Amino acid sequence: MHFITEKRLDDGVLEREFTLGEIPGILWTPGSASAPAPLILLGHPGGLHKMYPRLVARARHAAAEGFATATIELPGSGDRPRRPATEQARADLRRALAAGEPVSDEIIDALILPLVDQAVPECQATLDALLSLPEIGGPVGYSGGVISIGVRLAVVEPRIVAAGLFAGSFVPRAMFEEARKVTIPLHVLLQWDDEGNDRQAALDLFDAFGSREKSLHANMGGHTGVPQSAGDAAAQFFTRHLK
Amino acid sequence: MHFITEKRLDDGVLEREFTLGEIPGILWTPGSASAPAPLILLGHPGGLHKMYPRLVARARHAAAEGFATATIELPGSGDRPRRPATEQARADLRRALAAGEPVSDEIIDALILPLVDQAVPECQATLDALLSLPEIGGPVGYSGGVISIGVRLAVVEPRIVAAGLFAGSFVPRAMFEEARKVTIPLHVLLQWDDEGNDRQAALDLFDAFGSREKSLHANMGGHTGVPQSAGDAAAQFFTRHLK
Repeated sequence: MHFITEKRLDDGVLEREFTLGEIPGILWTPGSASAPAPLILLGHPGGLHKMYPRLVARARHAAAEGFATATIELPGSGDRPRRPATEQARADLRRALAAGEPVSDEIIDALILPLVDQAVPECQATLDALLSLPEIGGPVGYSGGVISIGVRLAVVEPRIVAAGLFAGSFVPRAMFEEARKVTIPLHVLLQWDDEGNDRQAALDLFDAFGSREKSLHANMGGHTGVPQSAGDAAAQFFTRHLK
Repeated sequence: MHFITEKRLDDGVLEREFTLGEIPGILWTPGSASAPAPLILLGHPGGLHKMYPRLVARARHAAAEGFATATIELPGSGDRPRRPATEQARADLRRALAAGEPVSDEIIDALILPLVDQAVPECQATLDALLSLPEIGGPVGYSGGVISIGVRLAVVEPRIVAAGLFAGSFVPRAMFEEARKVTIPLHVLLQWDDEGNDRQAALDLFDAFGSREKSLHANMGGHTGVPQSAGDAAAQFFTRHLK
């Protein structure tokens, strides 16, 4: 892990861009931390530059509660090399949506499953590097989408002890089986009128999670319309489980 | 309205039992209130004595946030005269459940609709009386079940400006039409594994509400297993909308 920039934000949060091999990422740590800060890994749909305003808002919010946050670029997104199979699946998806056709399982599988297979080990390698820093402690939370990446991480990565999942992306059928294996506390956000999302699939996925403690928070509005109060509730969830 | 008992609880909350005509009720006001306190009307499934431990816990929680709370006995419950039609509907319900049969629309209508018709004007008369007390101010919130009573109140009672509804009771089909007329902010609690509740009906009702601001909070556990964190989130909802 190499830090390539370092910037102090106006609220004292330290923002550092890094690379982990070929993968770009950003780490935010609270301005005033006496002890190693618990870490929240921020998920997003890909495109660090485009997502930056929303990511830094989430990072500041978390830092105010004493959390470090970090995020990495997804495979095939932002400045990372395109993946031909993913590009094909994206084109197929656009074509289906434009034609008003249902999005087939084949398209969803091709879009999501290889992404999960590659992104999850990258997240784990990022955790290895971040948790070796003296200012970062455990335990670790995962927050955001892509929800299938969060589900896989919740199953395979024991350092992640709680997850705030954003149910706003297509979910391959295979992930429902993985969801049953999840046992960590979950806080699931759903935008009730998310036009690009399958609400029933999100409800079914919530039902499938094996966790004894899970809660679903559905709010009005589209994909990007998550209200401030929902962000506050998610922060309280992590405070309960990571501190 | 006649106050018949007065008790100071250990956290300073003043608890007063009252009667409004034939209807028994309880009023809780915060120990330290400089200005008239906003009021939350607490809904419950009937049976003030049996429900008291849970009601007083909700009242103390709300008082800590500066809210007065009040509740009245439901028609046909507790010490109030039985209503023959309701008793018949309850017997029919028990018979259907014991036989493992689906609960018919006829039973649900007979159980709930006359209750709503009678309870809502009683709640309004209670508001008239409570809001004439100098220590109680507006605006007013409704919190709890019976959800159909909360829905009707949200439609017909303009003094109620926000409602935290507990989706844990049967909902007559007619209430879905009323739900479309609701426009106040809603915070809906659903216990995901509530064995006596129809989860899909609860989701459909949430979908039907006409409110621009509504959020659904589903938690694991049975009817009485609402977690502490859900109570905290509901309190924050009322703080946002009643203060």
